Amino acid sequence: MIKTSVAIAALSAGGGAALTAALYSLRSKDKLADMPATPAPSLSSTAIAASPTAVATIPASQIFGGPGAPPSPSSSLATVGTAPVNPGGLFEYGFPGPVSDIATRAALISSYDRRTRNPHWVVEHITPESLAKRDGDRKSSQFLEDPAVPAKFRALLKDYYRSGYDRGHQVPAADAKWSQAAMDETFFLTNMSPQVGEGFNRDYWAHFEDFCRRLTLRYPSVRIVTGPLYLPKRDPVDNKWYVKYEMIGTPPSVAVPTHFYKVIFAEDGRAGGNVAIGAFVLPNAPIDNAKPITDFEVPVEAVERASGLEFASQLPMQRRRRLCAETTCALVIKDYSERQKAFAKGRPASS
Amino acid sequence: MIKTSVAIAALSAGGGAALTAALYSLRSKDKLADMPATPAPSLSSTAIAASPTAVATIPASQIFGGPGAPPSPSSSLATVGTAPVNPGGLFEYGFPGPVSDIATRAALISSYDRRTRNPHWVVEHITPESLAKRDGDRKSSQFLEDPAVPAKFRALLKDYYRSGYDRGHQVPAADAKWSQAAMDETFFLTNMSPQVGEGFNRDYWAHFEDFCRRLTLRYPSVRIVTGPLYLPKRDPVDNKWYVKYEMIGTPPSVAVPTHFYKVIFAEDGRAGGNVAIGAFVLPNAPIDNAKPITDFEVPVEAVERASGLEFASQLPMQRRRRLCAETTCALVIKDYSERQKAFAKGRPASS
Repeated sequence: MIKTSVAIAALSAGGGAALTAALYSLRSKDKLADMPATPAPSLSSTAIAASPTAVATIPASQIFGGPGAPPSPSSSLATVGTAPVNPGGLFEYGFPGPVSDIATRAALISSYDRRTRNPHWVVEHITPESLAKRDGDRKSSQFLEDPAVPAKFRALLKDYYRSGYDRGHQVPAADAKWSQAAMDETFFLTNMSPQVGEGFNRDYWAHFEDFCRRLTLRYPSVRIVTGPLYLPKRDPVDNKWYVKYEMIGTPPSVAVPTHFYKVIFAEDGRAGGNVAIGAFVLPNAPIDNAKPITDFEVPVEAVERASGLEFASQLPMQRRRRLCAETTCALVIKDYSERQKAFAKGRPASS
Repeated sequence: MIKTSVAIAALSAGGGAALTAALYSLRSKDKLADMPATPAPSLSSTAIAASPTAVATIPASQIFGGPGAPPSPSSSLATVGTAPVNPGGLFEYGFPGPVSDIATRAALISSYDRRTRNPHWVVEHITPESLAKRDGDRKSSQFLEDPAVPAKFRALLKDYYRSGYDRGHQVPAADAKWSQAAMDETFFLTNMSPQVGEGFNRDYWAHFEDFCRRLTLRYPSVRIVTGPLYLPKRDPVDNKWYVKYEMIGTPPSVAVPTHFYKVIFAEDGRAGGNVAIGAFVLPNAPIDNAKPITDFEVPVEAVERASGLEFASQLPMQRRRRLCAETTCALVIKDYSERQKAFAKGRPASS
């Protein structure tokens, strides 16, 4: 069990971002291990009754149509008499969304945020076998705008051009070396966020990605979810909390995340077996290589609260392990060019 | 047709927000009237071929499985040989989302953003008849946390408490006076965003809501979509664009939007008839009552680019009219308490 205070210390120590950790102090006193694997919430009165903050003043039956009523979207109409309006009629003109532009590639699946023009999340799967096969070379790949995203919401190459930020892979190209075509697909901008290059994307973050690959030395199957965060920090002058992030492009279109998360699922290879979970949040800023990666470990729920996403909601508690309790969470720091060479030789940098 | 330059002037004139308008300068040269009602994009090679920025370097057939292949999510696997990995296997542990917590009430439908703990959008429908019926009194309603949203993503009453911001209705309570139960439902926090009170929510914004109601004097049916925006402005020191917004609550949980939009659909009452559309973006800041509402008119596409949402994508061009060309877009400014009294008397404030 990770103590919240550890997470706070870790996060406030991060890079140049003067990172604060209020989002990471869990609102409830629930421990991570006690986090229930709740089913998806429904509009049924059952879900309301189960909620600790169930509204006392309006009976659920009045709002949602009573215990026997199906959780239909229009069930509330029954309790307000004949409604003189039909708000859903607007959808005749088109549903507003948001649409997440799920893209399924050979080596990754991505979900896209049309407002920030960044991913919500990108998931990948690596194994000792997938990393051992080396048919792809990133020199043969090129960055690609994603034509599946409507033009007005699409991140463009020119948004990144001369922005000062790297086009930072969320699923690393190196994790899809098993096929040139699979690697090429990691170059879609829907797998990209603006990342600080020196000291982060090309350094500490790259070592972190290498750490994930090295987990396959112990685990036969590793799944990783990666994505951006936009975290607040406290203004020392007015003492209030503000989220502040740059937007790149002309007009400004692509958000520069303040942080990135990875939630790692290291599987023991048995069907229904144990899953060692590690969640990490790193600032989008130069990080000293001397800083232990465990400084950036956070409870999964901290990433959930900050991202609005849910991870492992269907994974039973008894199958969960804590990654950094089960294995050593430590980066192997190599010079970037050396690391690239090591990979070119066809073996993990750490081996 | 609204000129983009008008929209820019309007937005940069807004309140204390020193609003900038880069997001509103349309990226393409497409005129609003030429905006195609595109079908939802698919992963099929057809969709790619139709895109003006179709990727030339990788044939669509290599990425998505060829012209004859169905646009199935896994069709890409066919072209990369036997994939040694299965990224979708993660979803066995639960799908990350995002989930938009659509809530269907009698007088509104809302879509919720779990990350900002604000709505994405709230839609409503008003008619002369619905506004004429006055069974609800807002003194009988109270603000409600929404138990349909999972606790960790739910906006809480205590997040707003002493924040300095109003719990700002997106669909106004006054638009649901036709039933106390319907009005009560407008008080869910999923219909709320933090709004500046004096000079905005209780003043200019309230006059704007009144303007929407008065549209029913001319149009037999009016549909309105309302929601928050988080817009960048240029930093005069480094000349870069930043989005900056406060987060309220302890820990900071609920974003304070920089702006709010309304997209208004005024219908002529005929099936398949004309729809007069007006889109407006106002800063979340005090606004001088002397400022014309037309100063805040923007192209619909500007709201779409900024919000990541789409409005009226299925409404044929020939049915569209421009609201402020067809009717006079002007607020009637009344003292807030007078306006409340006028409503209490059972008639629109303007009549």
